[in-house]
Amino acid sequence: VGTDGSHRARGRGRPRDEHIDARVLETTRVLLAELGYARTTITAVARRAGVGTPAIYRRWPSRVTLIENAVFPEFPSFVLEPTGNLPADLQRYLDEYCTVLSAPAARAAVPGLISEYQTEPDAHRRIGDRVSGSTVRAAFTMLLAAAPDRDVDRAVDPDDVFDILIGAVVFHLFVRPFAGRHDDNTYITQLLLRALAPPLGKG
Amino acid sequence: VGTDGSHRARGRGRPRDEHIDARVLETTRVLLAELGYARTTITAVARRAGVGTPAIYRRWPSRVTLIENAVFPEFPSFVLEPTGNLPADLQRYLDEYCTVLSAPAARAAVPGLISEYQTEPDAHRRIGDRVSGSTVRAAFTMLLAAAPDRDVDRAVDPDDVFDILIGAVVFHLFVRPFAGRHDDNTYITQLLLRALAPPLGKG
Repeated sequence: VGTDGSHRARGRGRPRDEHIDARVLETTRVLLAELGYARTTITAVARRAGVGTPAIYRRWPSRVTLIENAVFPEFPSFVLEPTGNLPADLQRYLDEYCTVLSAPAARAAVPGLISEYQTEPDAHRRIGDRVSGSTVRAAFTMLLAAAPDRDVDRAVDPDDVFDILIGAVVFHLFVRPFAGRHDDNTYITQLLLRALAPPLGKG
Repeated sequence: VGTDGSHRARGRGRPRDEHIDARVLETTRVLLAELGYARTTITAVARRAGVGTPAIYRRWPSRVTLIENAVFPEFPSFVLEPTGNLPADLQRYLDEYCTVLSAPAARAAVPGLISEYQTEPDAHRRIGDRVSGSTVRAAFTMLLAAAPDRDVDRAVDPDDVFDILIGAVVFHLFVRPFAGRHDDNTYITQLLLRALAPPLGKG
């Protein structure tokens, strides 16, 4: 099993048809957007993509792994170079997260996957890697480190702020629209800047 | 359809068997905790509860409505009397939310429902009422209003802080455990207090 959760490097000697990989992943994204998480089954994907279910199971050991790979092909790799301007960097980081998570397939998949993880203890850590993986988390810590002392109280744990940020994004994208609230995400940046500021930096 | 989303007050003249209601709702909670959201279907609930599926559909028009009513029988009614001590009130409010949402059935149901809402536009506003309904939202605004001016910058929109709080709770309960982070929720209170504080109140 490769680092992306697929069965890439089995060394069976026969070259693998990358066209099938791409078609199955694309079909998975289409069905997620069209039918939602619950109805995006391996059987439904196989039928729509015109491949057999064994061809899918050879590549991805489960429906969860297939959906993870379809929605987050290289999610943990998005890294933004910090400029040292905290308000701007934070807003850019937030916008990037919102863009990735608001693609139609991601909207359907993320809450569905989170639901599945609750009753699947062996999925442990997968969501840590996918939604708040070490690369994005590290990038966020770097962003705070690059900011001037007047903007960041060093006593605040960057990991805690990161967790609040991701939770805020998830709520903003997936719940807030149903509460009839406005679409502008800058309140998240504003409140995080206030939470980060040192006591005297605000005076 | 009653205000709780069930078909209570149809006036069919025949007294409704409340035992069946209670048994079906309890069975739904058991299956959610045991099998997860995806496998808690009306058929599965009917079989386990020993009732026919028509008996369930007569009471709840859909699987989503059944699960909502099983998990949040009176969720929007939790109201905490504010004491005016903001750190204590905020922590109590947070703990209450964490308790309600971390029941095994709720853990499985909430992300599953959120996933379903993404591809079900007619479910609009339901999640607004269930997870961040007008009563809890209003209670939060009252909590901030009861706090002294030195703790709350009145320029901050209570609704924005509320949305950050709920997002933080959802992430804390449903994602953070999979990232190997600690279980203590007080970082949420601490960061929200910092975000709420007026510029001079921090000096």
